[in-house]
Amino acid sequence: MSARAGDTPEDWEGAVDTNPVVETLGRRLRLAVIGGGPGSFIGAMHRTAARLDDRYEIVGAALSSNPERGRQAALNIGVAADRAYGSGADLIAGEAGRDDGADVIAIMTPNDTHHEYSVAALRKGFDVICDKPLANSLEDALDIVRTVRETGLVFALTHNYTGYPMVRQARSMVADGQLGEIRLVQVEYVQGGKAAENDPDPAAGPLPWRYDPARSGPSLIMGDIGTHAHNLVSFVTGVEVAEISAEVGAIVPNRQVDDYAGALLRFANGARGCMWVTQAAAGVENSLKLRVSGTKGSIQWWQEHPNIMDFLPIDGPAQIRTRNGPGASPLSVRGSRVLKGHPEGFHEGFANIYTDASEAIAARRAGGAADPLALHFPTAEDGARGVKFVRAAIDSSNANGAWTDCRLTLD
Amino acid sequence: MSARAGDTPEDWEGAVDTNPVVETLGRRLRLAVIGGGPGSFIGAMHRTAARLDDRYEIVGAALSSNPERGRQAALNIGVAADRAYGSGADLIAGEAGRDDGADVIAIMTPNDTHHEYSVAALRKGFDVICDKPLANSLEDALDIVRTVRETGLVFALTHNYTGYPMVRQARSMVADGQLGEIRLVQVEYVQGGKAAENDPDPAAGPLPWRYDPARSGPSLIMGDIGTHAHNLVSFVTGVEVAEISAEVGAIVPNRQVDDYAGALLRFANGARGCMWVTQAAAGVENSLKLRVSGTKGSIQWWQEHPNIMDFLPIDGPAQIRTRNGPGASPLSVRGSRVLKGHPEGFHEGFANIYTDASEAIAARRAGGAADPLALHFPTAEDGARGVKFVRAAIDSSNANGAWTDCRLTLD
Amino acid sequence: MSARAGDTPEDWEGAVDTNPVVETLGRRLRLAVIGGGPGSFIGAMHRTAARLDDRYEIVGAALSSNPERGRQAALNIGVAADRAYGSGADLIAGEAGRDDGADVIAIMTPNDTHHEYSVAALRKGFDVICDKPLANSLEDALDIVRTVRETGLVFALTHNYTGYPMVRQARSMVADGQLGEIRLVQVEYVQGGKAAENDPDPAAGPLPWRYDPARSGPSLIMGDIGTHAHNLVSFVTGVEVAEISAEVGAIVPNRQVDDYAGALLRFANGARGCMWVTQAAAGVENSLKLRVSGTKGSIQWWQEHPNIMDFLPIDGPAQIRTRNGPGASPLSVRGSRVLKGHPEGFHEGFANIYTDASEAIAARRAGGAADPLALHFPTAEDGARGVKFVRAAIDSSNANGAWTDCRLTLD
Amino acid sequence: MSARAGDTPEDWEGAVDTNPVVETLGRRLRLAVIGGGPGSFIGAMHRTAARLDDRYEIVGAALSSNPERGRQAALNIGVAADRAYGSGADLIAGEAGRDDGADVIAIMTPNDTHHEYSVAALRKGFDVICDKPLANSLEDALDIVRTVRETGLVFALTHNYTGYPMVRQARSMVADGQLGEIRLVQVEYVQGGKAAENDPDPAAGPLPWRYDPARSGPSLIMGDIGTHAHNLVSFVTGVEVAEISAEVGAIVPNRQVDDYAGALLRFANGARGCMWVTQAAAGVENSLKLRVSGTKGSIQWWQEHPNIMDFLPIDGPAQIRTRNGPGASPLSVRGSRVLKGHPEGFHEGFANIYTDASEAIAARRAGGAADPLALHFPTAEDGARGVKFVRAAIDSSNANGAWTDCRLTLD
Repeated sequence: MSARAGDTPEDWEGAVDTNPVVETLGRRLRLAVIGGGPGSFIGAMHRTAARLDDRYEIVGAALSSNPERGRQAALNIGVAADRAYGSGADLIAGEAGRDDGADVIAIMTPNDTHHEYSVAALRKGFDVICDKPLANSLEDALDIVRTVRETGLVFALTHNYTGYPMVRQARSMVADGQLGEIRLVQVEYVQGGKAAENDPDPAAGPLPWRYDPARSGPSLIMGDIGTHAHNLVSFVTGVEVAEISAEVGAIVPNRQVDDYAGALLRFANGARGCMWVTQAAAGVENSLKLRVSGTKGSIQWWQEHPNIMDFLPIDGPAQIRTRNGPGASPLSVRGSRVLKGHPEGFHEGFANIYTDASEAIAARRAGGAADPLALHFPTAEDGARGVKFVRAAIDSSNANGAWTDCRLTLD
Repeated sequence: MSARAGDTPEDWEGAVDTNPVVETLGRRLRLAVIGGGPGSFIGAMHRTAARLDDRYEIVGAALSSNPERGRQAALNIGVAADRAYGSGADLIAGEAGRDDGADVIAIMTPNDTHHEYSVAALRKGFDVICDKPLANSLEDALDIVRTVRETGLVFALTHNYTGYPMVRQARSMVADGQLGEIRLVQVEYVQGGKAAENDPDPAAGPLPWRYDPARSGPSLIMGDIGTHAHNLVSFVTGVEVAEISAEVGAIVPNRQVDDYAGALLRFANGARGCMWVTQAAAGVENSLKLRVSGTKGSIQWWQEHPNIMDFLPIDGPAQIRTRNGPGASPLSVRGSRVLKGHPEGFHEGFANIYTDASEAIAARRAGGAADPLALHFPTAEDGARGVKFVRAAIDSSNANGAWTDCRLTLD
Repeated sequence: MSARAGDTPEDWEGAVDTNPVVETLGRRLRLAVIGGGPGSFIGAMHRTAARLDDRYEIVGAALSSNPERGRQAALNIGVAADRAYGSGADLIAGEAGRDDGADVIAIMTPNDTHHEYSVAALRKGFDVICDKPLANSLEDALDIVRTVRETGLVFALTHNYTGYPMVRQARSMVADGQLGEIRLVQVEYVQGGKAAENDPDPAAGPLPWRYDPARSGPSLIMGDIGTHAHNLVSFVTGVEVAEISAEVGAIVPNRQVDDYAGALLRFANGARGCMWVTQAAAGVENSLKLRVSGTKGSIQWWQEHPNIMDFLPIDGPAQIRTRNGPGASPLSVRGSRVLKGHPEGFHEGFANIYTDASEAIAARRAGGAADPLALHFPTAEDGARGVKFVRAAIDSSNANGAWTDCRLTLD
Repeated sequence: MSARAGDTPEDWEGAVDTNPVVETLGRRLRLAVIGGGPGSFIGAMHRTAARLDDRYEIVGAALSSNPERGRQAALNIGVAADRAYGSGADLIAGEAGRDDGADVIAIMTPNDTHHEYSVAALRKGFDVICDKPLANSLEDALDIVRTVRETGLVFALTHNYTGYPMVRQARSMVADGQLGEIRLVQVEYVQGGKAAENDPDPAAGPLPWRYDPARSGPSLIMGDIGTHAHNLVSFVTGVEVAEISAEVGAIVPNRQVDDYAGALLRFANGARGCMWVTQAAAGVENSLKLRVSGTKGSIQWWQEHPNIMDFLPIDGPAQIRTRNGPGASPLSVRGSRVLKGHPEGFHEGFANIYTDASEAIAARRAGGAADPLALHFPTAEDGARGVKFVRAAIDSSNANGAWTDCRLTLD
């Protein structure tokens, strides 16, 4: 994470030669995790992300809402017996009571419990890393924001797509004025996982809570991937989405949760945009794409091939920018571990959230300041804006597509 | 155009061994053109398209609204002096009065004159090939439809993108049920030609009429490329767009004509869609893309690489379908002249409209029936639906994005 | 062919507004064709290429070695009865004896007859356009070169891949020093048409002569596509291939003709290269690819997507160059008819050979000089170099891969 | 590594729910590393690969040939002071003498010391993971093979490209007969890192040993990336390269080490192939590509986009196979951690070697048998074949391209 990009291994400057957390604190951060047990895709992802750069050791876990299952799973991944907890509440209490207790709590439970665990952990003095969406209601989201502000702790939200180096490259180029004033944005997040009509009974699947709106939130498609799309647009452009005209619904017959949303967007600076998200596009894998056009050029990025990004200047040949390649920004290079041409992927992007947060946490604990480049991870405020966006999309959809304000003022 | 696809030149069956027009009529069709003089991109395109398969000879031309300039240009492309006309009206009258007069009149004038020339030509008994959009008003469009129906003549509208073999392949696969019931459609037509703010004064440019709404129609972006996108969707899916929620406007400051439009779509069968069109995306060339998802799979097609189309079945590996490749439909093969792997492009797609129309015209004149596969070219009815669609988009945009009906009933 | 590239149709300067042949001679060139009758892929291609830019009219034809079949086919494509010849010899004699006889003879017969018809046509004063390879033996090839030189006539060889605008762009960039000194070349021409073992009996197919080495030449794979690869490399780099170490053979059991060749190359300037050609790669369509690296950068071009070319500068981001896009060279723009983003393909590349030759021929006949940009079409000398290259490849293969000289000195 | 692929996170079966090493041994494997200190690209890569799936803990390190520098670097990455060794010999001795000594030694030193450390570690009873190439001479390579056989220990060679799931998919499909009999192979490994003439003085760079043939081996280009290409071909096809005709040399003036090689290949089953490797192609990043054609179809894989692989069946549409996508083989799925559409990259492929080896080592130590799917990592025998291949390439190059045997019989 402090690599200098070179053309060849010979002129590489040690990607993992240093460990800023160990340098700052004399040890790795102690991490306890709530959620993400057997059958969870995202649980393994969080733990691998924490491990990748050797900044954390996992010391405690409450992996399941079923206490017995959770404790066994914790033992299976090597957690000590006395820190294999039966519930999130037990974990927070237990770790808070130990001299060698966790520094950080990571939360990857069903959406409706993010608020409860986040606030409880913050109140006990833990820094928090939380899966998205931040909360199911704006009220809960704002409560988390307030608590973060009051406690002064670090709170990172794993909108992991912002961790991709080329997404950070896009952010840098926009911030640097290389695209000029932003005018047009097109974002789509298309998947095919819910294309089949004969879904197995969701209640029998491994994550039944996702099909219960009380738990998964007001719109499954918007909470699941619409917030990723919104966060990605905001992260890259630095411009707030101001108004939305949307339709959100279920295209597959007899489905109780939303599986598609289309939206037109107006940005605070006058730019216009279009969003298309669905999980019902048969055969599509995980097609998150972003196009941003400004007065000086356009960029195009596609998650399925994340190591490249097209840059189309208004007055010259199209360019293919590459991770660690020519013109890579410091923010982008920082999030990259390997030489150009050696692909990185989802794990590394996700790990960048963890690794950046680790530096912010270590600096806070040491009373110092983190590298400013480490401070681009999504925050509680970002999450609250996402919750507001979801709400506005649903309201617009219910109002015959009327343009609806989605700004969130956080003084 | 009667090619049988083979793997190698050796098993090729004569692409241009036959000329159905010559076989039917004993001669090529005589074509007279109105519009498309010096400085016109589309004029040369029409004439090349007419020439490609040797079905037409150009016998007369009124190439410019400036009589002198038009006559000279006609001489320059080899038209005889007595058929180099000073105006469209002269051409129609002159050709109608000759024993060896034109069979077909092709119209590629500014949008506001399509109606006048089309109706005049049809009334004099000429078959007509007309550039899009059909007309600037629905009233004019319906008048053309009525006139075509009354006269029984052939009328072809050059929505040329439907001429691409892989677009026809998509239409065949949908019609054949290979995608199942259509559920989701995403279409975009993104260009960068109007991204610059410092447009040269349009009135000084070669096509000043395009910047005059009275001539170019109620919305430049919608008439110019939005109708192409709408026509493409309708052609491939075979499902009518029923309602639209749109925003249409100018994103570049101080521009008097529209340069972008976003729209959400509801189809007659319940499918949902999203459309994004603009000419202000810096650095983008001519990015017309279509994605259609049905219950059994999805297709993706991109005009800039028109010889391939992705087919994503719901239950198997993604496929790259190719022009004249395995699984090519008869409709697609018919529109293809060269072996697979030997690219075709814009000229050939455009020519397919001319060539198909030539067979319909020759058959009509001979009192026979054309090959049903020749009858997939866009018609006046298709054009009228496009005009209605443009109108509905503008109305929705003016009504805060309200869902607006865009169906056109043509008994 | 005199287009100026613009961003949009509005600033387009008439692609086909002028016809230099008509301007120079007052009429189109009269073309007579030998070969390319029913079942021939290349015959239709030649005739379409001649028609595309309206520089030629086809006045005579000897389409088949079967006189009756050939005459009927000529009538079918609209040739007058008295110029529908039963043999190539008759055609040459007949056209030579007419006041309105052909100006140009195009030859697309089996390879072993190229020499006979070319020399005969040249001796009678016709300019010649001939399909590749130039001849089956170096002796015959050199005889054609001598005859061209003695007669002073125009001779164009349809190595059509050099007609692609992006190939011409590559040539321009190399000539202009944008790649620096050429160091490394990789060229491959991979097809799948002969992958199947159970070939139908070639003698029963439409082009049985191809399977007879006496007619198709010393190596089918090398004559068919290896010469294209060699010509492409020479055209782009401007450097002669000096030595070759090769293996040429048949990979499919029981095949009598060669179906693959691998070769290492040494260039006259010290550059090194690699060539891989085969028609036995199952499922591959027409994958001609060229990579050239110089001291300042590399280019990559792929025939299946011919409108783009990668340019990789040594010190900056990779670029995607496009036909008529930013940085397009005059030579490349000249060979392009349509706006950037509107694909062109095989027909247009092939037509560029015909169209360039038409200007050279018209200029010669008018006693003037053609536009120097028109004089990049392949010549008899280029063809003779290709024949020498094929011979050297076979000799090397027969000598256990020994490096073999393939230079051809043509004072 | 025991993931079951699903369409969505919901039907995912815990990628890292289990840890076979912990299950088998009750603890992680203890790993000590020799080499890979500050400035080493590959050192960080090895350690991250070891950490990714939590199968190893790094307990000892001798990171540099400079004792002081090495010890400090070991402390920096968290190794205890008494196991921060000043040399590889010290490490082997020290760890062999501890009750809690390392189980496994990983070697990532300059090429000329692989033999010494490997044999020493094996002789002391350590399982070994060694960077490629195996050795600089065939004699050394065979000595390692003999030692592995005599000791019965696990030896894994980090030809990491075989760890990519889609490479394993290719191997599975070939082994399963889906490509039929292998006929044609094209492999290329093209980089641009050594394109510049004005190389900084290698002796002043961080890895000066690479420019000393006595240390880096008989051919830098062949040892560095040629062996990867050879290993990849062997791994996927399962067919031995039998003979080679090659040229190996330096294309950049005044360079003392080889920077390119071209080769034609003959396989033991009669297949033919072509290899092209260079580090002097300006602007190219890390373009390792493999194409394999058999009687039933072809595959194409490109390292820069490793999550996809083209499969071209002889009789159907081209397919794009994806990691964890439809048709993924058990061997491929095993090496994959994340849902399809969520990219993996270089780290994960490299980690697959470590993780597979961990299961083989744990099973050996427990006296049991590892999952057969874990046993596809490259071995000492594979490495010896690579050394023989490099030798044969050089010999052929020195013999004017003469075909040279490269088979290695290991009874």
